[in-house]
Amino acid sequence: MTSSTTLDSALTRARDRRAAHLSEYKDLLAIPSVSTSSAHKPDVTRCGQWVAERLRAAGLPRVEIFPTPGHAIVYGEWLAAPGKPTVLVYGHYDVQPAVVADGWDTDPFTPTVKGDYVFARGASDMKGQIFAQIKALECITAGGPPPVNIKYLIEGEEEIGSEHLEEFIDTHKDLLKCDVVLNCDACIEGKDQPGITYSLRGLAYFEIMVKGPGLDLHSGRFGGSIRNPIHVLADLVASFHDANGRVTLPGFYDKVRELETDERAALAKLPYSDKQWFEMTGSKALYGEKSYTTLERVGARPTLELNGIWGGYTAEGAKTVLPSTAHAKFSTRLVADQDWRDIEGMVRAHVSKHLPADIEWSLKMHSGGPGAIMDRKSKYMKAAVVALEEVFKAEVHFTREGGSVPVVGMLQEKLGVDSIMLGFGLPDDQIHGPNERQYLPNFYRGIETYIRFLVKLG
Amino acid sequence: MTSSTTLDSALTRARDRRAAHLSEYKDLLAIPSVSTSSAHKPDVTRCGQWVAERLRAAGLPRVEIFPTPGHAIVYGEWLAAPGKPTVLVYGHYDVQPAVVADGWDTDPFTPTVKGDYVFARGASDMKGQIFAQIKALECITAGGPPPVNIKYLIEGEEEIGSEHLEEFIDTHKDLLKCDVVLNCDACIEGKDQPGITYSLRGLAYFEIMVKGPGLDLHSGRFGGSIRNPIHVLADLVASFHDANGRVTLPGFYDKVRELETDERAALAKLPYSDKQWFEMTGSKALYGEKSYTTLERVGARPTLELNGIWGGYTAEGAKTVLPSTAHAKFSTRLVADQDWRDIEGMVRAHVSKHLPADIEWSLKMHSGGPGAIMDRKSKYMKAAVVALEEVFKAEVHFTREGGSVPVVGMLQEKLGVDSIMLGFGLPDDQIHGPNERQYLPNFYRGIETYIRFLVKLG
Repeated sequence: MTSSTTLDSALTRARDRRAAHLSEYKDLLAIPSVSTSSAHKPDVTRCGQWVAERLRAAGLPRVEIFPTPGHAIVYGEWLAAPGKPTVLVYGHYDVQPAVVADGWDTDPFTPTVKGDYVFARGASDMKGQIFAQIKALECITAGGPPPVNIKYLIEGEEEIGSEHLEEFIDTHKDLLKCDVVLNCDACIEGKDQPGITYSLRGLAYFEIMVKGPGLDLHSGRFGGSIRNPIHVLADLVASFHDANGRVTLPGFYDKVRELETDERAALAKLPYSDKQWFEMTGSKALYGEKSYTTLERVGARPTLELNGIWGGYTAEGAKTVLPSTAHAKFSTRLVADQDWRDIEGMVRAHVSKHLPADIEWSLKMHSGGPGAIMDRKSKYMKAAVVALEEVFKAEVHFTREGGSVPVVGMLQEKLGVDSIMLGFGLPDDQIHGPNERQYLPNFYRGIETYIRFLVKLG
Repeated sequence: MTSSTTLDSALTRARDRRAAHLSEYKDLLAIPSVSTSSAHKPDVTRCGQWVAERLRAAGLPRVEIFPTPGHAIVYGEWLAAPGKPTVLVYGHYDVQPAVVADGWDTDPFTPTVKGDYVFARGASDMKGQIFAQIKALECITAGGPPPVNIKYLIEGEEEIGSEHLEEFIDTHKDLLKCDVVLNCDACIEGKDQPGITYSLRGLAYFEIMVKGPGLDLHSGRFGGSIRNPIHVLADLVASFHDANGRVTLPGFYDKVRELETDERAALAKLPYSDKQWFEMTGSKALYGEKSYTTLERVGARPTLELNGIWGGYTAEGAKTVLPSTAHAKFSTRLVADQDWRDIEGMVRAHVSKHLPADIEWSLKMHSGGPGAIMDRKSKYMKAAVVALEEVFKAEVHFTREGGSVPVVGMLQEKLGVDSIMLGFGLPDDQIHGPNERQYLPNFYRGIETYIRFLVKLG
């Protein structure tokens, strides 16, 4: 079969079977695969089996469920295209918790179609995306083996930090060997605005405790005579940035890869307005590192943000306590070439220099992961761009994402391959919140895009 | 009867009846008069009645229980000494909450004598003190009317902020008219170290909320592009003090009464050691306003201390949130001549100047109260000093207390009278904590000191 025939017949099949696809997608959404809940452990297991079954139904000769100490990893492969690229599809079948009481209008595990949307936990993040990809493959393989070698890595712990993924990758490097990753855990910018994220920020997340007195004291009897750990912590937090919004950790910017001129130009052309940013955030003003635009600040510049702070009396009313300890959680977001492993040392050096010698403190790094930047000019990226443009009839924007998708950096580090971030959620899908939804027209467009992407690489 | 005869017979009676006094004191301690707990409301009522009964037993011709919307105020008077001073005895019969699970070795409402101590909630704060005072009066009045006019004002809401006391004083100024207040809610410095507190700090307690974005945001997607309210709050907290530990609120020190030379000299002679301060606080260093000693810093200088701070994610693990709001509780301690009513304006002015215009904030004053400074040379103070020295055979130190006893400033403002702070708790009695206790030898010395004080004024 020519690739054009393959494409036509796959697309036709995708269009003909929309009702069947939706029905099966709803079956998947009905499984409450909440990975954080031990009560849902059997549901998570069942969901992994369901996904494996769909891979088998798509024709994959090898589908295997690898148990982990947590939730299982579903692996599949069909290596029937010698000389062609090997594409590793990444996804996850677990979801965030959800109960009606959180503010859902319908039961989160009773998928409900209203207008152009299906409402359910996981509809957008990311059962909709991984399912669309599997159905795309199935539409192709209904006519014969896939035009590329294809592998699947679908985990059940993404929503709880992918606890066992790294070890699995480390111990299965040959199994996972590939030329490119197709990461479906992604969004586009707007209903009719396709975009591809080519840069993700890395993360290093910390918690600090500062201790002044040995016990909580009466702020009247002792206030004014010894250091208050809340004052000490506030001074420290204030010291993390200079007046221009730059992070003051020594060495923090040393390895930062600066934006290329053409990137800045491309980012400047992206649909963006302050007004829209204010609407999304409820903020009244922009703020950040001088000489950078908002999209550059979140996409291309590293940050240090406080995520939590606490100490002393925080309940109702008044208590005149001078507390023994104060605490904060904070995280740095990192850009290309910064190594998350370097950051803890920088934080320690800064804290050690900044805190008074008589203050005890302890610092813990909760987690860290690399950022990633992908080659915008590779044949894989080009295939994705063209596939998107053919389906959406609109110019594809390259975007930098401020968040972190640790698996992307991890696969880049361990397997040496880029990830193509291609998924069809929307920014306002309320992922992780109540009334999560997926815009169905883009679920169908997603299937077609995935078909075109694979066929182009064949 | 001569005053010497009165004294001798009262002291003899006090010594003879120690066992009876202890037994009755334990009856009082067994009543769980926890004012904050609605479940204990009947116990609080019963405790007020118990105290009223003891006043009647001491011979007071007028004893009245004044209901309030909260807990009742016990009033008593015996005005049988025309031309002599009128002493208003202040105390409270309510106690802090206590349950064994807080770490008590014995039931907090089953008074337990071990060695020289009785352990029970309220033993030191302040059932022991007010009961000793009533028994002192009774020892005198067993021989006839008291040598001074005496009034009692014993409230049941001290541990919950004396909510209804101010209104009662405002509406009963004639009833409460007096020459001096004997406030028994006090400590001495050490077992054999009598001291009189002649200065208390006032208080103004605040809570602030700062709001950045309209909702909690993902710190990756938005971090670096808008203000983080925790950063804003930390900057604000850091701005409350300069590098020398001075409070930066404009005008804060304008009215502060400076220490007199002889006061500084007297404070310098007080038993104090850094080592002891470190032991009490578990701190490793002293800190505070330059050019003042520790006792001056807590006793004679105003402060601003953070009592609590919170915002963002504070539970276990990591959450990458950029929160909408951050909060803090803080309080200023004030010294003589500072008006607590002025402080809110200073805080508002500082916050308003310091916070960026795009940050919403709200400030609430929880409570405030005046500080107080008493005349160290009045005849009432002298009577207290001599009574203490006669009983303790030791020099009396005048001390300044860093905490606040709002009723002292309130009575000074409203009735125009000083309070003599005379009570026999000790700093390590664990008031408000588990295993609260009273050192019994000083309970008995207390009765004798109160007897001598009243007789001297007669």
